[in-house]
Amino acid sequence: MKPTLEDARKFDAADPLARFGDLFLRHEDPVAYLDGNSLGRPPIATITRLQGVLEHEWGGRLIRSWTERWVAMPTEVGDRLAAAVLGAAAGQTVIADSTTVNLYKVLHAACSLRTDRTEIVVDDANFPTDRYLVESVAASRGLTVRWISPDLVEGVTSALLAEVLGPDTAAVVLSHVDYRSGTIADLSGLTADIQRCGAVVVWDLCHSVGAVEIGLDAAKVDFAVGCTYKYLNAGPGAPAFLYVAQRHMGAVQQPITGWWSTADMFAMADTYEAAPSITKMLSGTANVLGTAAVDEGVSMVAEAGMAAIRAKSIGLTEFVIEMAADLDLELVSPRDAALRGSHVSLRSPHAKAITTQLIERNVIPDFRNPDMIRLGLSPLTTSYAEVWTAMDILGDVARQIGLKAQSTIAP
Amino acid sequence: MKPTLEDARKFDAADPLARFGDLFLRHEDPVAYLDGNSLGRPPIATITRLQGVLEHEWGGRLIRSWTERWVAMPTEVGDRLAAAVLGAAAGQTVIADSTTVNLYKVLHAACSLRTDRTEIVVDDANFPTDRYLVESVAASRGLTVRWISPDLVEGVTSALLAEVLGPDTAAVVLSHVDYRSGTIADLSGLTADIQRCGAVVVWDLCHSVGAVEIGLDAAKVDFAVGCTYKYLNAGPGAPAFLYVAQRHMGAVQQPITGWWSTADMFAMADTYEAAPSITKMLSGTANVLGTAAVDEGVSMVAEAGMAAIRAKSIGLTEFVIEMAADLDLELVSPRDAALRGSHVSLRSPHAKAITTQLIERNVIPDFRNPDMIRLGLSPLTTSYAEVWTAMDILGDVARQIGLKAQSTIAP
Repeated sequence: MKPTLEDARKFDAADPLARFGDLFLRHEDPVAYLDGNSLGRPPIATITRLQGVLEHEWGGRLIRSWTERWVAMPTEVGDRLAAAVLGAAAGQTVIADSTTVNLYKVLHAACSLRTDRTEIVVDDANFPTDRYLVESVAASRGLTVRWISPDLVEGVTSALLAEVLGPDTAAVVLSHVDYRSGTIADLSGLTADIQRCGAVVVWDLCHSVGAVEIGLDAAKVDFAVGCTYKYLNAGPGAPAFLYVAQRHMGAVQQPITGWWSTADMFAMADTYEAAPSITKMLSGTANVLGTAAVDEGVSMVAEAGMAAIRAKSIGLTEFVIEMAADLDLELVSPRDAALRGSHVSLRSPHAKAITTQLIERNVIPDFRNPDMIRLGLSPLTTSYAEVWTAMDILGDVARQIGLKAQSTIAP
Repeated sequence: MKPTLEDARKFDAADPLARFGDLFLRHEDPVAYLDGNSLGRPPIATITRLQGVLEHEWGGRLIRSWTERWVAMPTEVGDRLAAAVLGAAAGQTVIADSTTVNLYKVLHAACSLRTDRTEIVVDDANFPTDRYLVESVAASRGLTVRWISPDLVEGVTSALLAEVLGPDTAAVVLSHVDYRSGTIADLSGLTADIQRCGAVVVWDLCHSVGAVEIGLDAAKVDFAVGCTYKYLNAGPGAPAFLYVAQRHMGAVQQPITGWWSTADMFAMADTYEAAPSITKMLSGTANVLGTAAVDEGVSMVAEAGMAAIRAKSIGLTEFVIEMAADLDLELVSPRDAALRGSHVSLRSPHAKAITTQLIERNVIPDFRNPDMIRLGLSPLTTSYAEVWTAMDILGDVARQIGLKAQSTIAP
């Protein structure tokens, strides 16, 4: 039976993460925000923290803050993210640059480990930046791109990979959670498949980090990247992260060899020598405000715990699917919660019009070309009542648009 | 005659930029800050602006701010910087990434215009990141690095370049103001020399932007990069800028081909197509907080005007040199103000010890390996009285350390 607002309120009352909702800045508008998977809400602690960075660390200590606090931040906050969210030991993760720049560096780093091989494998359902970068990195290194075409919902499978993996495969680039369908890929299984053929894997964690449990070390992942402005709530354009497995640290090379990638940047040495640690993956001056915001976002996720976050994520996506059951919208995302990330995509020929009207009624979903409404559920900030309201209005809008379309095409 | 504190106060009273000092956040500590050429002070307007971005643009409008405001910021703020500071028409400048990442992209872009040539020229006095990146970009493209060794004070000259420029030269990388000596290079003369041999030039403006007048368009510069956290006061790790001359826009290619570099990032097209505009030089998601801070920093410089800023910069550096005249410190920077940027370097075998003691006495200079004390004068925030105090304490410290050294080596 379709859930009622009363049901939603009961779920909220029983939600162990409900108290986190009050830790975020909220305005009356919008009435429902289902795009936290594109841009999370601002934690109040982040606003306070940034005020402190501006007034005391920057304004008060001025240049001294670099050595007192800031130089260490990319690795320190990286380690915190690794421990709380990525399932990774210290010394393998940094906060830096954008996902795009990090992916570029990591792709080159991955290929630098397999210079005797000639192909990079990537799927054509992957996020645009990933596909574009694979093409340009491959071209610059004289490699071939080997495309695979997964089913949108099924995603990349072991069987599909088996068709292309071989002695020529240098690296494979995969997304952990698909940005359209929300399908979770088999991180450890596919990693093992790839490594069995002697290649290395690069995982894009943008749509899973902070919402789905990740065990990078346990899965023996080689490389990973991801952003911090979705479920980690670090704000628009906050710096991204990258992960390199410790076993590769000595051998990997990355191309953007700025002063921050050396063992002692203040030595300003005549000849370049890469740091022996994860620091070698840095390039230029750290984005201090952004990294502080990542630190606050990670702290909240750490406090809530990834197990509780994942449990609520499943609860919220199930709730959306139940609410959508009687609507004339096709469920794109997997029906099995074990295979589904923290967003739900619904398909309609009227998806664009429905999205526009929802926004006019202060419900914010996301639209994905050509026909998908994407509903993001952010476990720390989204309540069941908020979802109920959004789905109630979505039902109303979808029905009206459907009726109008029918009357238009009627004889 | 050595200036007195009374003289300093008279200069401050007559300073048309004096009122800008009150527009920055100040604490009692330090008593003198002569490192604004590494990290400028926070404008109060920036703190207010960022508060607004956090609370209203991010917290209030949430994801809607991307299309309403943020997506346009890298080019809009770039254009403002170009008009007020760089002497460049609109459409050639973006705010993005770090100086290191931008230099990497611009180096590749420069070489992409001269694929029939085999050498990159760079001077061994250039900033470490510049030298390191030239080496790695050259290696990845199969090019040779042709080193030149300028005199530290004289800098790169037309005669020195003439020895190496030729039909093999693809690109030359130069700094406008030397980060150690403060020497200003002949931007338009050297640009013309380089172009006469058919090569392109990449100027690093880090130590001149916001302190020295720059005319990129008038000098027909090909490419430029620079940071925003020095004289533009945009804060620790604020995004950098890059400039590509309009005449090259169609032909240049850059390697970090992320979604932000396409003509319509939200189209998420199957195949990559670079934007036809300066947008093609972007890569990943813009750092919104940092770009807003750049915008505020640029606004203040625009209000003050580069001519007035340059005039005060000369006044301040002259004042430092006069105050240092009777100290046992060698002036490294040019004595001729026309050849000198906005910092003054003084050499001493005791430079490290002097710097340490100055910091203990709450005067903040910078130290540059192996024997230089670098004094940065930031025209919008540095007063003559502040400089007088700093130089008075410097004199005291230098004398004491000098006496101690003499007594130690005495028989």
